[in-house]
Amino acid sequence: MITLAVDCMGGDHGPSVTFPACRQFLSTHPDARLLLVGLPEVLATWQAHERAEMVPCSEVVTMDDPVEVALRRKKDSSMRVAIQQVKDGKAQVAVSAGNTGALMAVSRYLLKTMDGIDRPAIATQLPNDRGGATTVLDLGANVDCLPEHLLQFAVMGSALVSALDAKNVEPSVGLLNIGEEAIKGSEVIKRTGELLRKAGDSQAIRFIGNVEGNDIFKGGVDIVVCDGFVGNVALKASEGVAAMIVGGLKNEFKRNIFTKFAAIMAYPVLKALMKRMDHRRYNGAALLGLRGLVFKSHGSADQSGYEHALNRAYDAARNNLLDRVQGRVAQAAPVLDAAGTSSSGTGAA
Amino acid sequence: MITLAVDCMGGDHGPSVTFPACRQFLSTHPDARLLLVGLPEVLATWQAHERAEMVPCSEVVTMDDPVEVALRRKKDSSMRVAIQQVKDGKAQVAVSAGNTGALMAVSRYLLKTMDGIDRPAIATQLPNDRGGATTVLDLGANVDCLPEHLLQFAVMGSALVSALDAKNVEPSVGLLNIGEEAIKGSEVIKRTGELLRKAGDSQAIRFIGNVEGNDIFKGGVDIVVCDGFVGNVALKASEGVAAMIVGGLKNEFKRNIFTKFAAIMAYPVLKALMKRMDHRRYNGAALLGLRGLVFKSHGSADQSGYEHALNRAYDAARNNLLDRVQGRVAQAAPVLDAAGTSSSGTGAA
Repeated sequence: MITLAVDCMGGDHGPSVTFPACRQFLSTHPDARLLLVGLPEVLATWQAHERAEMVPCSEVVTMDDPVEVALRRKKDSSMRVAIQQVKDGKAQVAVSAGNTGALMAVSRYLLKTMDGIDRPAIATQLPNDRGGATTVLDLGANVDCLPEHLLQFAVMGSALVSALDAKNVEPSVGLLNIGEEAIKGSEVIKRTGELLRKAGDSQAIRFIGNVEGNDIFKGGVDIVVCDGFVGNVALKASEGVAAMIVGGLKNEFKRNIFTKFAAIMAYPVLKALMKRMDHRRYNGAALLGLRGLVFKSHGSADQSGYEHALNRAYDAARNNLLDRVQGRVAQAAPVLDAAGTSSSGTGAA
Repeated sequence: MITLAVDCMGGDHGPSVTFPACRQFLSTHPDARLLLVGLPEVLATWQAHERAEMVPCSEVVTMDDPVEVALRRKKDSSMRVAIQQVKDGKAQVAVSAGNTGALMAVSRYLLKTMDGIDRPAIATQLPNDRGGATTVLDLGANVDCLPEHLLQFAVMGSALVSALDAKNVEPSVGLLNIGEEAIKGSEVIKRTGELLRKAGDSQAIRFIGNVEGNDIFKGGVDIVVCDGFVGNVALKASEGVAAMIVGGLKNEFKRNIFTKFAAIMAYPVLKALMKRMDHRRYNGAALLGLRGLVFKSHGSADQSGYEHALNRAYDAARNNLLDRVQGRVAQAAPVLDAAGTSSSGTGAA
């Protein structure tokens, strides 16, 4: 039995999305249990289910709340209580669509960072041209990264991909850069390249070299490592282009009676494409490097999107992602230590 | 009369693209002259035109040549000779589709950096959802930027946009960040935000605050300022998504006889969309901050794309972009000096 703690209040839509997604998830996962965390009056609207338990709380972290408020003032928030379930061993994984900064800060405060890791990272999947997905990290948790942090991301990303895809035991890692040549990039990126090459030589990861922004969507690499600033910009720029193209397509099809007819003819084709590109299918980012599993859903996710985040969290717990990350970090300890990693502990601990 | 020096050898296709583009350009610009720089055997294939003059050279910088080779060894390359025409006052602007690193290095070496500017930047336009274009800089010339460099980019970008769009005298400037709040971002970005706010207060630029990756394509801001690493990743990630969507659309339409029929019906609509999104329309990036005008075409540009780069270079020269950038930098001198700008000279020089 896998138990997920769900922050039912988080996200732009709260329980109007999380409740139906949870019910659907329960029906497709007979070996899953849910701890539904929310305000009592909201929980009262949930129709009882034998594998769902209520955990009342008295506060909600809003999308605009500064990190400090989430951390110091709202100590009985749905977000925090959900993560507390993981800390207390009552759930294997927590899921929230709440604000990213707050979620990371509260998770880090309650669960603490794993030995050998300085900074937790956020990893997500993006669809690629080969019909698969590319895992990108970090996506906004860390804006000023040192080379050793990026090396830690590479090790954790490798553990994530091999945990969620049993066929991919040694996923490939690329370093996001502005050219494929090793001499390109900023000082931090050049030094990171050296560390990743060494890690590749000692088989801690399978490093394939530099990749560029478009490689995320080409699909020639399993994991793309970058700092949170660059990752966040790349992700949002990509969303912006996709929205512009889809919006443009809709406008062109609406132009006149002929184009509207064309739209009807083309509808099945467009629908198939949209399904393949559907970002909801890739919803559910992993917070890696903590002593407990936390998954983040996009704040604007609809029911289908939130369900995917629950599925991913479930898969991660079922495949012992936590142990795998810890194991992989321990295995990479010589490389991480040599790179000058966290003083809080060695990977071998 | 506006004279452009054209590196006819540069780019993936060389004269097979540059020659037809130049001929077409001459026919649509009766007050333009071209200096065609190339190997003698290539120039021999050009059919004479009264407003085109040949400038023979003996070497070509390849797309793979390291910067050092372009700079120190190939001193009679088509790229270098074209830029030399600008330096010698024989042409107002040089255009090349050659390798970006080499073009920037040779331009900087020959033309020198403008007073008040530490680092030249590369600025390009990207299409946005409002049917206009957003100017983004830097796009790869500078990977490790200080806040004062980003301030200089903001000032130069403002001069570029107001020079090329007479109706937009005070274009808006946004700072690329990972959230709209002023407290977000890396240390460099936070300090840049402070500098840009001060520059906005003193009306050196019209600063509207932080913007995110998707804002490039939304169209709510005229100029997006970022360091070259982030700009390059954002640009390439965007190209990657666009290529994936267009490729996916083509595949879906090719699937079977019904979808092929749908494609025929939808063809005019798709064509209209592709035209609007056509990256060739936005080809032609400006190298800003030099004591002479240089424009860069995408290496893979076809005839239509290259023509756009020639058009943009022509427009820039016709609208005195060089004087305007110099004027704007001089006007912003108090702000630039206060920020701790170039030691090579003050903006007021």
